[in-house]
Amino acid sequence: MKRIISITVLALLAQYAAAQAPLYASVDPFIGAGGEGHIFVGPAAPFGMAKPGPDCKGHSNSGYNVDKQVPLLGFSQTHVSGTGGGPKYGNIQIMPFSGDFDAIYQESARGEEIAQTAYYSVLLEKWKIKAALTTADRATFYRFIFGQKGKKAIKLDAGFFLGEPTTPDPDAREAQQFVGSEVSVTGSNEIRGYTRIRGGFNNGAAYTVYFSAVFDHPFSNFSTWKDQQLFPGKQVQFDSGEKTGAIAYFDAASGDTIQVKIGISFISEEKASYNLDQEIPDWQFNRVLATTQQKWEKLLNRIEIDHSATKEQRIMFYTGLYHTMLMPVDRTGENPLWISNEPYYDDFYAIWDTFRSSNPLITLVSPSREVDIINSLLNIYHRDNYMPDARSGNCNGRTQGGSNADVLIADAYVKGLQGIDYNKGLQAMLKNADVPPGDNEEKEGRGGLPDYNTLGYVSTRFPRAGTRTVEYAYNDYCIATVAKGLQQDRLYERFLKQSDNWQNLWRPYENNGANGFILPKDQNGRWVDTIDCNVLNAPYKQIQYNPLAVDYPNCVCWWCAFFYEASSWEYSLYVPHDVKTLISKSGGEEAFKKRLDIFFNNKYYNVSNEPSFLTPNLYHWIGRPDLSSTRIHLIIDSSYNTSAAGLPGNDDSGAMSSWLDFHMMGLFPNAGQSYYLITAPYFTRTVIHQENGKDFSIIAHNLSKKNTYIRSVKLNGLNYDKSWLEHQDIVNGGELVLEMGDKAGTWGTQVRPPSK
Amino acid sequence: MKRIISITVLALLAQYAAAQAPLYASVDPFIGAGGEGHIFVGPAAPFGMAKPGPDCKGHSNSGYNVDKQVPLLGFSQTHVSGTGGGPKYGNIQIMPFSGDFDAIYQESARGEEIAQTAYYSVLLEKWKIKAALTTADRATFYRFIFGQKGKKAIKLDAGFFLGEPTTPDPDAREAQQFVGSEVSVTGSNEIRGYTRIRGGFNNGAAYTVYFSAVFDHPFSNFSTWKDQQLFPGKQVQFDSGEKTGAIAYFDAASGDTIQVKIGISFISEEKASYNLDQEIPDWQFNRVLATTQQKWEKLLNRIEIDHSATKEQRIMFYTGLYHTMLMPVDRTGENPLWISNEPYYDDFYAIWDTFRSSNPLITLVSPSREVDIINSLLNIYHRDNYMPDARSGNCNGRTQGGSNADVLIADAYVKGLQGIDYNKGLQAMLKNADVPPGDNEEKEGRGGLPDYNTLGYVSTRFPRAGTRTVEYAYNDYCIATVAKGLQQDRLYERFLKQSDNWQNLWRPYENNGANGFILPKDQNGRWVDTIDCNVLNAPYKQIQYNPLAVDYPNCVCWWCAFFYEASSWEYSLYVPHDVKTLISKSGGEEAFKKRLDIFFNNKYYNVSNEPSFLTPNLYHWIGRPDLSSTRIHLIIDSSYNTSAAGLPGNDDSGAMSSWLDFHMMGLFPNAGQSYYLITAPYFTRTVIHQENGKDFSIIAHNLSKKNTYIRSVKLNGLNYDKSWLEHQDIVNGGELVLEMGDKAGTWGTQVRPPSK
Repeated sequence: MKRIISITVLALLAQYAAAQAPLYASVDPFIGAGGEGHIFVGPAAPFGMAKPGPDCKGHSNSGYNVDKQVPLLGFSQTHVSGTGGGPKYGNIQIMPFSGDFDAIYQESARGEEIAQTAYYSVLLEKWKIKAALTTADRATFYRFIFGQKGKKAIKLDAGFFLGEPTTPDPDAREAQQFVGSEVSVTGSNEIRGYTRIRGGFNNGAAYTVYFSAVFDHPFSNFSTWKDQQLFPGKQVQFDSGEKTGAIAYFDAASGDTIQVKIGISFISEEKASYNLDQEIPDWQFNRVLATTQQKWEKLLNRIEIDHSATKEQRIMFYTGLYHTMLMPVDRTGENPLWISNEPYYDDFYAIWDTFRSSNPLITLVSPSREVDIINSLLNIYHRDNYMPDARSGNCNGRTQGGSNADVLIADAYVKGLQGIDYNKGLQAMLKNADVPPGDNEEKEGRGGLPDYNTLGYVSTRFPRAGTRTVEYAYNDYCIATVAKGLQQDRLYERFLKQSDNWQNLWRPYENNGANGFILPKDQNGRWVDTIDCNVLNAPYKQIQYNPLAVDYPNCVCWWCAFFYEASSWEYSLYVPHDVKTLISKSGGEEAFKKRLDIFFNNKYYNVSNEPSFLTPNLYHWIGRPDLSSTRIHLIIDSSYNTSAAGLPGNDDSGAMSSWLDFHMMGLFPNAGQSYYLITAPYFTRTVIHQENGKDFSIIAHNLSKKNTYIRSVKLNGLNYDKSWLEHQDIVNGGELVLEMGDKAGTWGTQVRPPSK
Repeated sequence: MKRIISITVLALLAQYAAAQAPLYASVDPFIGAGGEGHIFVGPAAPFGMAKPGPDCKGHSNSGYNVDKQVPLLGFSQTHVSGTGGGPKYGNIQIMPFSGDFDAIYQESARGEEIAQTAYYSVLLEKWKIKAALTTADRATFYRFIFGQKGKKAIKLDAGFFLGEPTTPDPDAREAQQFVGSEVSVTGSNEIRGYTRIRGGFNNGAAYTVYFSAVFDHPFSNFSTWKDQQLFPGKQVQFDSGEKTGAIAYFDAASGDTIQVKIGISFISEEKASYNLDQEIPDWQFNRVLATTQQKWEKLLNRIEIDHSATKEQRIMFYTGLYHTMLMPVDRTGENPLWISNEPYYDDFYAIWDTFRSSNPLITLVSPSREVDIINSLLNIYHRDNYMPDARSGNCNGRTQGGSNADVLIADAYVKGLQGIDYNKGLQAMLKNADVPPGDNEEKEGRGGLPDYNTLGYVSTRFPRAGTRTVEYAYNDYCIATVAKGLQQDRLYERFLKQSDNWQNLWRPYENNGANGFILPKDQNGRWVDTIDCNVLNAPYKQIQYNPLAVDYPNCVCWWCAFFYEASSWEYSLYVPHDVKTLISKSGGEEAFKKRLDIFFNNKYYNVSNEPSFLTPNLYHWIGRPDLSSTRIHLIIDSSYNTSAAGLPGNDDSGAMSSWLDFHMMGLFPNAGQSYYLITAPYFTRTVIHQENGKDFSIIAHNLSKKNTYIRSVKLNGLNYDKSWLEHQDIVNGGELVLEMGDKAGTWGTQVRPPSK
């Protein structure tokens, strides 16, 4: 009887499961793995330290190459996702093989590749080995099924890292450089060791990744290697500044399947072993897989979209949410630099990319996580001198433009996140604003500060002068915001005034139908029209600078351009705190509309570049939220899809993905400020199940392919004329009901979103 | 027949050896271990990484306390010698005991303490354990003889470090802070592990010291501990940010004597084990001792003083030479930050202290060593951004005044040291001179540079403005010197001009009979007479600044004083490149003589402070080298002796000691320039046996207690009127013969040593 009931229950559960497919099944890790997306395709836990995945020949920064013709070299335990610039990590590479046992280098063609949430598998065609991967937070799990008879081998390479040049160049910019490695065969089925690497994306100091790899069968014998020479049976290769590794061999008694689990740590081999024991005490591949899947499910479940979503939209949306939570990485307890009770996060790639939408999306899904991330930044400031813009391998480095961690502090403050010492936050922001970082202005803080704090702009004697000036102005607005809240009136006044500094580079200048641009000015206050090229073999000696000019790569180095990764057309629309004044300086609302139209129609807009993330929404400030919606939907429909190249540009730690997700919900944050701009959503109902237990729903009545215009809005049953929504309204729970129609109405036309 | 000859030869050798006691026997490690000397008393190899030695309760920076009433806590493997400021190291502490086996903390009264070159022994009176220590370069050796029956225990504490406050304060300045530790009992007679510490003297980033300790008897049983809790039989305590250690127990079968050897490394435990195997493969305590003694003997032998030296003088001289070669530490192959073919030295404490006499003495004794040290500095510049002024634990930090590594480059250049890329040296110097170090101006480079490079002096808005200005001026002279040699004429002219910058703070100002002083000036060019105190609980709100004022500690913080560790009286005599102009600005030779007399007679001179190292020699520049001699001998006779307090002030990595040694030989270098000033020596014959195989002798005919004046001089048989000697004359080999008499003659009165 009992048994019959159980079976009935199970049957019911199975039926329920079929109806309610888990959300993690809607994640497709291959989206953005091709093109410029640089998405990591291997398994990962949310914000997880371990990211085991395939490393291909000619790989992108994620280790992966979507071109199936390119062979696979192995699976390393650490990766980043979506990044540009130089590669980082790719440490401790494992590779099964059954061919030439005397060769350290191994590669195989790939077949039958599958990537799902927390799961990756591939057939190594050369030897018919099927490799399946899953992972916990700090330990990885491999199942290798050997399809050919004969001896089986698995190598662990402690010397491998991503982006190694054929000829090592210790002076190469953003290149990882080998420092040391070690391996020990510590038992009949365990190999330990570490790799020590410096440089990479952030030109950082040396970091060390320790590992303990445990196999489910004893080795029949083994070799270790140093500097390309194999030593059969030698247990230890100590670190003498050369590459080391180990090969474990298995005989027929081991059967066809060998499983390996690898704990990693940035602290020690013993800590790596501890991490492994804590997270993967047994050999249950499916248990590890299910645990990590459930971690994702819990987070993905925070935003529910209804049946109106097409399958493709559902995949795009949840994959976007997944991308947003791959980094930064929770390394609490794994900081080799200091001990602290604060959380510790690493791999900020970069806050310049993520502050606009990735962090705000994390704040919506899991505000406690965002609090941890910000407290980690404040702890880094406290012990390591500055909050990072970018950080990786326990080292700040590669500040893109402004000191945009400031925006995160302000964003948390205005959204009322609890558990953050905002006085300390203000100190950390003031450090950025007042103390030049010195020698290496890419490392942290504000480069060009001596100019900015005396002239009110960064002059052309500093790289990225335009980017820096306009971003510092907004960062200053963020400082003013927090200072005001903390009743620091003098600071508030100072920084509010400084937030106008973008105007010091505003030059009346006509270009392609628009007037007024942020343009370069020298230290003596003279506009700079001609830029002397300094790049070796530049095609020109000088170039004329104008709002469409791209000084890199034709003239100056990547980092030396006036605007980082952008033109003046793009950056001259970046005044997130004072769009009203921007409109006025551009000639009023009519001229501004024309300017935006030209910008988008002439493709001066670059969908893949973060500085323009807010620009499609600027129509809101001239009372035309309908035009914002139209632009945004055009962009999504033309630039995003579920293919491997379905993300525009590098995903940049979820930046592109979170931009998409917000807009699919019909909201977009102006990070550092307390509101979201409202546009037409993609779904008839989106429910945000908040950490505080309160639901907030966005409902679009009569939404259809034809009815894409918001005619009227009600918030919690009351008419709502504003085209923006306060974060507090979401926190309180409730519903925003949009009445959709086939043309624009008067909603949102009468009042304008906030300006300074 | 053959055997008979051998015996005869041996007998002759023994006879010879008795007559010729080894020089290392003239070293007394206790000199300077008391008072303010902070000398390390344990065994050490020349420039050796391992420095095992006693750690006492209430220790100085060396770990030692000369007060015999103070108990001993154990012996750690790493120390520095002679340093001031906050402590550093004291890692991996070993302690034998036989009392309470459940207590981690152990201490014992000391008896029968002996310290000799490469040897230290002590009786731990509490348990009648005799501990004897010797060391190799990277591995240490302990012999413990247990004087009581019963169980024997030896603990290894991976959590201990010097200067731990009772209440940990992670924000404490110059305090070491615990980051992590680990221990593993890896076999029947081996314990491995590491300690990870940050902060200390140079407020540096975390460093890790790994160890492998091997015992000559198997453990009967063992305990490990974590965070004060003992775990009997538990082999591993992994790093969870808590202190760990291990206690090994030995039963009666082990006998009374237990020997332990400990390899250390900054790379890994395996590297520590490798270092141990390489250096101490056996259990021959005396072989290790003799090997290290012979390393010292070879270096001490480079300077031979004759029988005219009293026993005490001989001990003072060779102990001084020994002190000079304890640091910096050769860590080639032990750099965890990058790999390189260049040598790697650490523990520069600080170049501000050592450039004046320690490095020049190393250059005389072993120019190849000085070349290695300088190449290490250039490699640090290349990979770690700046040459250090101070560096410890693989991290630059705690720049005292100027960028005095510049002086070392110039000193090597003018002395013709081969094997240095002086173009790279010039780049490294220009980095100091042109690129502000940013946020932490104590870390490296030149603080206050924006002022110095625009105003020509550092204004009072920066700490240590006086020290910085005068030292930068001399550093600039050193840059000019190298630039000139490399035919960089524009750089030469620029820096020669900048070397006059000390004059920008020269103020006509009368004080106690002297006129003209280096005095504080504000950013607007106004002299500053009143300093606002900013120290908490300062006794005054303001103090008047005058040439005798000491703004620290009565008014401003240690690092904030106008002159670092000194008064204006002292620093207003520091113009090593242009004493001629200094004399002229002081009112001419007569006024300058009066000024020097007042300076010394009124005790404005501070014998223990490096900025005045050259001052007793300044009489040379007014044609009175006899007065220099008289002053120098007075200073030596009143401030130096063979007692534990026999060094004035902190020895500062051999600074005080090398000052003594040069003056005992009758020479003193003006570092950065190519000559030595000649004064009356202490010995009738000193022979420098140079690395190049050529001897240079300094002979003082008729030297006696009465005949202390140089009457005339011959260099290689020719009359020599100059009161200074060129380095090249030493390099070429030859002899300097001084005819001594009982009053001063005309020698040295007609020509003046070089000025700019």
